[in-house]
Amino acid sequence: MTTVHAYAARERGANLEPFEYELPGVGPDEVDIRVTHCGICHSDLSMIDNEWGFASFPLVPGHEAAGTVAAVGERVTTLKVGDRVGLGWHAGACMSCPQCLSGHHNLCPSGEGTIVGRHGGFADVVRAHHAFAIPLPEGVESGDAGPLFCGGITVFNPLLQHDIKPTARAGVVGIGGLGHMALQFLRAWGCHVTAFTSSEAKGDEAKRMGAHEVLNSRSDEALAGIAGSLDLIISTVNVPLNWDGYIAALAPRGRLHVVGAVLEPMPITAFPMIGGQKSISGSPVGSPASIATMLDFAARHGVKPVTEHFPMAEVNGALAHLKAGKARYRIVLDA
Amino acid sequence: MTTVHAYAARERGANLEPFEYELPGVGPDEVDIRVTHCGICHSDLSMIDNEWGFASFPLVPGHEAAGTVAAVGERVTTLKVGDRVGLGWHAGACMSCPQCLSGHHNLCPSGEGTIVGRHGGFADVVRAHHAFAIPLPEGVESGDAGPLFCGGITVFNPLLQHDIKPTARAGVVGIGGLGHMALQFLRAWGCHVTAFTSSEAKGDEAKRMGAHEVLNSRSDEALAGIAGSLDLIISTVNVPLNWDGYIAALAPRGRLHVVGAVLEPMPITAFPMIGGQKSISGSPVGSPASIATMLDFAARHGVKPVTEHFPMAEVNGALAHLKAGKARYRIVLDA
Repeated sequence: MTTVHAYAARERGANLEPFEYELPGVGPDEVDIRVTHCGICHSDLSMIDNEWGFASFPLVPGHEAAGTVAAVGERVTTLKVGDRVGLGWHAGACMSCPQCLSGHHNLCPSGEGTIVGRHGGFADVVRAHHAFAIPLPEGVESGDAGPLFCGGITVFNPLLQHDIKPTARAGVVGIGGLGHMALQFLRAWGCHVTAFTSSEAKGDEAKRMGAHEVLNSRSDEALAGIAGSLDLIISTVNVPLNWDGYIAALAPRGRLHVVGAVLEPMPITAFPMIGGQKSISGSPVGSPASIATMLDFAARHGVKPVTEHFPMAEVNGALAHLKAGKARYRIVLDA
Repeated sequence: MTTVHAYAARERGANLEPFEYELPGVGPDEVDIRVTHCGICHSDLSMIDNEWGFASFPLVPGHEAAGTVAAVGERVTTLKVGDRVGLGWHAGACMSCPQCLSGHHNLCPSGEGTIVGRHGGFADVVRAHHAFAIPLPEGVESGDAGPLFCGGITVFNPLLQHDIKPTARAGVVGIGGLGHMALQFLRAWGCHVTAFTSSEAKGDEAKRMGAHEVLNSRSDEALAGIAGSLDLIISTVNVPLNWDGYIAALAPRGRLHVVGAVLEPMPITAFPMIGGQKSISGSPVGSPASIATMLDFAARHGVKPVTEHFPMAEVNGALAHLKAGKARYRIVLDA
């Protein structure tokens, strides 16, 4: 038995409090990770507030963990105690359904969310199936790694899945936790990069992160000015946009890819989508193989989140900072 | 000068009447086609009724023409008088924009619609840029060819553009002029094929055309019964569907492809699209190269429209038959 020292919301919307729980001996395919750092994702807030209806309490948030392997199960051959690893939204999957068997573990119908029905990374230890504890390459610091495992892979995976070419002209809507990494990835990918933000203050920073151009995300005129030009738009925001305007900004055969879980239905007009042979799509995080590919790419290109660090004991202050929209651009808790 | 004997709507919504007009000498890149047959597409009705706002009158409909080359311009080297050819929605394009230069002439911003601002195939002669008058291979009869050039290519092109694999499980919504060809193409492509129709009477015919299964397109229960199973759904209808239900019917990474120009916005819910890594897309007809590829495939596999033939002089009766939803499945006018 291992006693885990964590921070939990005892009920929906509650402040986090110190919380201890016991883990039985590590299972044959599992590893325990000694958490050194854990990023805070907007989904942690959504889960604390049970916005999506599948949170259970007490809830230990945290699904952007980085640390070192503290224990390995008897069947684990690819990791050893002391290895630096990270853990993202998924801590396990069935490993045997068609999705898992074809390398799309992130689409497994019985995929195990790190903070869904189990306890996450705002803790000294977090447990996972070994395949989801992914080694950090040299060049990816543990203090920077966590946010890559959820926010980073969420914006990187569409480039893999949809075979985006370096010749593409790409846009990123929303320059926050996800968007600021999307700018870097797309710039490193070789694309022309346009940042869309409603915050004038973020313009210069967006350019430093890789944007060639910055436009006001709420300006219909700005959108109209680039009509027909973008091969890819990644929307990271969870508020309704001028969807028809963004689709009009796509070049023929362009794609609007949504990773921000906007709750209001998107009223898509068929005619311009048909006429321009356009697509609208979405995707959730990424598979272990995609995450490993991303880490290698991030290390080679120096892509890393811009972080603000808080001691884990100040988690409530950190959450309030995020909730207030003040995070620049990703908060990491240090154990 | 050539005097063309055609049928035209003199004003919006009018019956067609005999109408003559003069064509000047054929331009250097143009050909004249002696029309032997012309299919009737629902878009002809939409144009007569000016539903899309860009019809001009008098309007000679007809954009599924088949016939023989009657005259060629001086720069035309790939066609000669007497060649059997067909002509679809497009009769020309700029041939020099990025879309044309990359083989996507159907996405050319100044593409010339056969019946948009010019006169179409309900006539003894129709003129086109030579690249859009596409030779009919042996095995494609002139009387069957017309409907392939608009309805056929509209449902075939998504298979090319989106790299659909023969291993896919595919659905077709709406078994009409387009859908009945989609069933045949998908069956020949090697896919598992599900037909969705609101007409019980069409069930057996849909199976003869290639469907392995037939479901009621308006039954939420039927949709729920196949949730998560289809890699591709092609929607040919122009009425609102239970879009969320159809998206739920898609397998992970599946695509809902819309070729029916539904006018009401489609209220797409982001969450299931993101969770299942799904796409929604559309496309318009196809390029000359795609049409030629389709004709070759259709000839090899015996794919052809199921047609009802009317003499061209009975065009008003034929249009009324289509408007009444009675066409089984594509009407062809014979010159």
